[in-house]
Amino acid sequence: MNTEAQFVFNTLSFLLWGGLVMWMAAGFTMLESGSVRTKNASVICLKNIGLYSIAGLTFYLIGYNLMYTDVSGLIGKFKLFYHASADEIALLDGQEAVLENVLGLGQSTMANWFFQMVFVATAASIVSGALAERVNLWAFFIFTTVLTAFIYPVVGAWTWGEGWLYEMGFYDFAGSTIVHGTGGWAALAGAIVVGARLGKFRKDGTVRATPPSSVPVVTLGVFILWFGWFGFNGGSQLALGSAVDATSMAHVLVNTNLAGAAGVLASIAVARPILGRFDLFAALNGAIAGLVAITAGPEMANHYWAIIIGAVGGVVCVSAIRVLEAIHVDDVVGAVPAHLFAGVWGTVAVAITNPEVNVLVQLLGVLSIGVFVFGISWLLWKGIDVVVGARVSRQVEKLGQDVAELGIEAYPEFVLMPEPDDEDE
Amino acid sequence: MNTEAQFVFNTLSFLLWGGLVMWMAAGFTMLESGSVRTKNASVICLKNIGLYSIAGLTFYLIGYNLMYTDVSGLIGKFKLFYHASADEIALLDGQEAVLENVLGLGQSTMANWFFQMVFVATAASIVSGALAERVNLWAFFIFTTVLTAFIYPVVGAWTWGEGWLYEMGFYDFAGSTIVHGTGGWAALAGAIVVGARLGKFRKDGTVRATPPSSVPVVTLGVFILWFGWFGFNGGSQLALGSAVDATSMAHVLVNTNLAGAAGVLASIAVARPILGRFDLFAALNGAIAGLVAITAGPEMANHYWAIIIGAVGGVVCVSAIRVLEAIHVDDVVGAVPAHLFAGVWGTVAVAITNPEVNVLVQLLGVLSIGVFVFGISWLLWKGIDVVVGARVSRQVEKLGQDVAELGIEAYPEFVLMPEPDDEDE
Amino acid sequence: MNTEAQFVFNTLSFLLWGGLVMWMAAGFTMLESGSVRTKNASVICLKNIGLYSIAGLTFYLIGYNLMYTDVSGLIGKFKLFYHASADEIALLDGQEAVLENVLGLGQSTMANWFFQMVFVATAASIVSGALAERVNLWAFFIFTTVLTAFIYPVVGAWTWGEGWLYEMGFYDFAGSTIVHGTGGWAALAGAIVVGARLGKFRKDGTVRATPPSSVPVVTLGVFILWFGWFGFNGGSQLALGSAVDATSMAHVLVNTNLAGAAGVLASIAVARPILGRFDLFAALNGAIAGLVAITAGPEMANHYWAIIIGAVGGVVCVSAIRVLEAIHVDDVVGAVPAHLFAGVWGTVAVAITNPEVNVLVQLLGVLSIGVFVFGISWLLWKGIDVVVGARVSRQVEKLGQDVAELGIEAYPEFVLMPEPDDEDE
Repeated sequence: MNTEAQFVFNTLSFLLWGGLVMWMAAGFTMLESGSVRTKNASVICLKNIGLYSIAGLTFYLIGYNLMYTDVSGLIGKFKLFYHASADEIALLDGQEAVLENVLGLGQSTMANWFFQMVFVATAASIVSGALAERVNLWAFFIFTTVLTAFIYPVVGAWTWGEGWLYEMGFYDFAGSTIVHGTGGWAALAGAIVVGARLGKFRKDGTVRATPPSSVPVVTLGVFILWFGWFGFNGGSQLALGSAVDATSMAHVLVNTNLAGAAGVLASIAVARPILGRFDLFAALNGAIAGLVAITAGPEMANHYWAIIIGAVGGVVCVSAIRVLEAIHVDDVVGAVPAHLFAGVWGTVAVAITNPEVNVLVQLLGVLSIGVFVFGISWLLWKGIDVVVGARVSRQVEKLGQDVAELGIEAYPEFVLMPEPDDEDE
Repeated sequence: MNTEAQFVFNTLSFLLWGGLVMWMAAGFTMLESGSVRTKNASVICLKNIGLYSIAGLTFYLIGYNLMYTDVSGLIGKFKLFYHASADEIALLDGQEAVLENVLGLGQSTMANWFFQMVFVATAASIVSGALAERVNLWAFFIFTTVLTAFIYPVVGAWTWGEGWLYEMGFYDFAGSTIVHGTGGWAALAGAIVVGARLGKFRKDGTVRATPPSSVPVVTLGVFILWFGWFGFNGGSQLALGSAVDATSMAHVLVNTNLAGAAGVLASIAVARPILGRFDLFAALNGAIAGLVAITAGPEMANHYWAIIIGAVGGVVCVSAIRVLEAIHVDDVVGAVPAHLFAGVWGTVAVAITNPEVNVLVQLLGVLSIGVFVFGISWLLWKGIDVVVGARVSRQVEKLGQDVAELGIEAYPEFVLMPEPDDEDE
Repeated sequence: MNTEAQFVFNTLSFLLWGGLVMWMAAGFTMLESGSVRTKNASVICLKNIGLYSIAGLTFYLIGYNLMYTDVSGLIGKFKLFYHASADEIALLDGQEAVLENVLGLGQSTMANWFFQMVFVATAASIVSGALAERVNLWAFFIFTTVLTAFIYPVVGAWTWGEGWLYEMGFYDFAGSTIVHGTGGWAALAGAIVVGARLGKFRKDGTVRATPPSSVPVVTLGVFILWFGWFGFNGGSQLALGSAVDATSMAHVLVNTNLAGAAGVLASIAVARPILGRFDLFAALNGAIAGLVAITAGPEMANHYWAIIIGAVGGVVCVSAIRVLEAIHVDDVVGAVPAHLFAGVWGTVAVAITNPEVNVLVQLLGVLSIGVFVFGISWLLWKGIDVVVGARVSRQVEKLGQDVAELGIEAYPEFVLMPEPDDEDE
């Protein structure tokens, strides 16, 4: 194929699929806003549009360069501002002589940047869900800034930036560990430092279910995420300028969808005997877990393996929710089970379906990224807690962050039930 | 154009438009969740994410082969698992020698499979809406499994699989009858067997309107469907590797939009004298009816014909709603009028706009698919009713399926109106 | 690149990005439906699906020809019906001899029409938000018909139709002024003629905040708009058949996103000292204002300029909201500040970032379009007011348009708060 046609295909792929990944930010917002109690359904909207905006700017300011520019094993260059290639700028300025140079890039580097940028926001979205209903707004935005400007880019430098894990052969196609794991570890550290919501765990050790503000809105969020995942995984082929790339992208989308579907049905099947009924939230989390699990190697697995990987992802997620509850870690939307635990499984599963990938290297990647992200996140949350307070006051939490922090209500005209009294226990 | 560029265009078309058709599953979910009473707004979410998952797996397991592999007039091959072509797999494994063979396929067969798969879910979505608020979850999932694994693939084999109706010249571009008719007939059979909701039809024969849980959510659902329809009809061009294909796709999108718009305005116009006021639900159903109507031949109709076809589709839908109510068939969301009746009109209309299409063959197609789908669906619903009970108990229906079957509420914190007492009449 | 491949790329770009712009209609619907009081949350849904349908048909009937066919400085041809080029129709009819002629068009003209059509609806959507909760349905639909059939096409003829402003060098890449300004001026005229909602401005001059029906739904609307904006600005490159076009499109998407993100953060920063708290609505309006501001020249600005333009757009919007309130113009969703004021800024900013663009011409364009659209809209609203009444009766307004005009409620099963008594003041 003509190199210019290849260039256009590659660029278009980044733009279209990247646009669709941006749409996942809406998915996280809806999932989280529907999952929290009504008194906190607005503040989570602000957190999400805020984090998407912060991520887009920090990745421009320093994140991209830390991740991709002159990576020396551990980290890229600390340099302000992402710049498009000089040749592209010259081409846009009408200098046709540089066309060959631009074609030599294979794609517009700006399109590539756009695609990388939307991934950063995904990692941050995971954190907002887990820490909903009690994390201080300032604290959350500060954490998001560091996560997107530094923590995620460092993990990215080790891997997609061709740093030390890449050199060892660590394999993670679209980011089961690099994106979802990073978000999950950061969320876990935050959930531990910030602590559980008032009344979530009763004195007798039992768990109190908190009412979601809107189940249909949660469901909408999951459908948005599923739709967006075609962009997340499909775009991660990183090229579309040949029959091989197009075929691989088709393979990726088929496997992504099969894994999501299998995650749903496996989660329903596993949750049913435990609860004695169908469990919508298990199905919804199962979809995400199945999608996360296949994300590490959707172009490697055969179709039946995609089903197995997705199904196991769903089961892992349902189980992990029980584990977190047992150790009294309060994750409002099940973000850590769906993104971190299912992501670990998916990252390891690549070694099962593909003999060229070393399972020990996969484990090393999971572990080293876990230690780094969890460690630095824990320290950061601790530091934030000292300086501005990671958590809202008891009074604000009881009143709800919408009224206390934003001065609004999510559904001000609707009459709400009084909250139960056992919140303090 | 270079054959490899053609291959990439064709494949990309299936992937992008197919992804957009998947998004229609969210549209059906919102439309239905907003239309049902609040006490059933969660269970319909589970039905929809469940049916999408079931459809995706059954079509992989046996549906695709029944529909497309070695179709002998009536049915394809009963063979487990869809497989990508061996050449594609070899190409992905790095065997460059097979490139010519793969290019000869014209597109990635996996992309084609992906596009076909999302269509199956659409048919099943139609059923869930019509039977909402009283069909048993197990019953619905069992029916969905057979519909997507067998009924729809057989109809598909007759037509797109190049079986007997195809050979007679039956024409249905994107599935006014094949997809929407199949879903509509299956829904109609179910609505008859399962029966109307308690209190829907009063003893004096009058119809009781049931309150929708959220009108904005219904509207969102219709917008999602409209957006998704660009993929549904546009992707059904099945190719994008030439100027003819691209031009035809543009033609299809223009006509699809004109028909939807005409359906909206015609429905408003027709409903107004009947009701003496503007009718939002007429407008919303009219949009869908207009879109369904044009689906059989969006690349054949001139633009003004697209407007007429869409407008008549809207009128047909408004009228059919009255007919169904008169014969006491309870279709919660108007799925049968919008999908089946408008689909029949659209399938016949192709013969009006295109002299090469025989109206008798179109009618034969509508009729034979109707007899087959309605007949087998009726038997299946009857069988399901005997074995597991197609309908929830009177007590569950009164309480609501959300609480009774899922143990949750869709909006647990909101205070709801008490239901009126005449539900039993 | 092969001319046929170019043709397909160009056509595909219009279809995909145009489809995404249609999706913005859903964004406006959600933004507005969530922003109004619950008693008016259904009628705004009807207005929006109605306006999208009207826009699609009027632009087919006469709008397109007025805007693009034989434009003689001030206006195109008054000729009924848009027609695809004869060559395209011939090609679709199988006449291969015309292929060269069709390729000479560079793209399917139908795809181009589709893309132009969805822009019309955007302008009309802006009006519905500003005038929500009191404009009469008939009046709104009549105004929409004239706006989309005549007012917008005339503005378009002056500019994109290569009329007098185009010839003077007026520059507006994707329509900060042509689309968003036109909608904003029309909305402003309407808001003045129709007047403020009952009780919006108290006798003592203070402003009464009216409760939004659903904050998460507003947020969803803004995310939809942001996502759709990639189509709005990206597709406005109007071509994708070369490396230059693809690179420019990438540049456009990067800048669009940076401007939106900067608009969010700047609005939060500016609103915080004023209110003493975080302001979600400032953030949401800031996103739109940032996006509107960059729309006039997203392919000209360097990335850092995109940030500045977006940030200033956000600040302009926050400030303009205060100004409108001070002069007692009631714009329910902040449409005029976000679309008109930020659009003026963006149109002027093009001259700052690009020396070839004359700031006086930009101002002349803003002014002349403003005078034309505001003037004719004001007259039209006055005329409508005389003939059918632009505003609902006091009784209907108090009762809510949903019940009074549609006979339905948006959330009929939910118990709502009684409204405060000071509505009449």
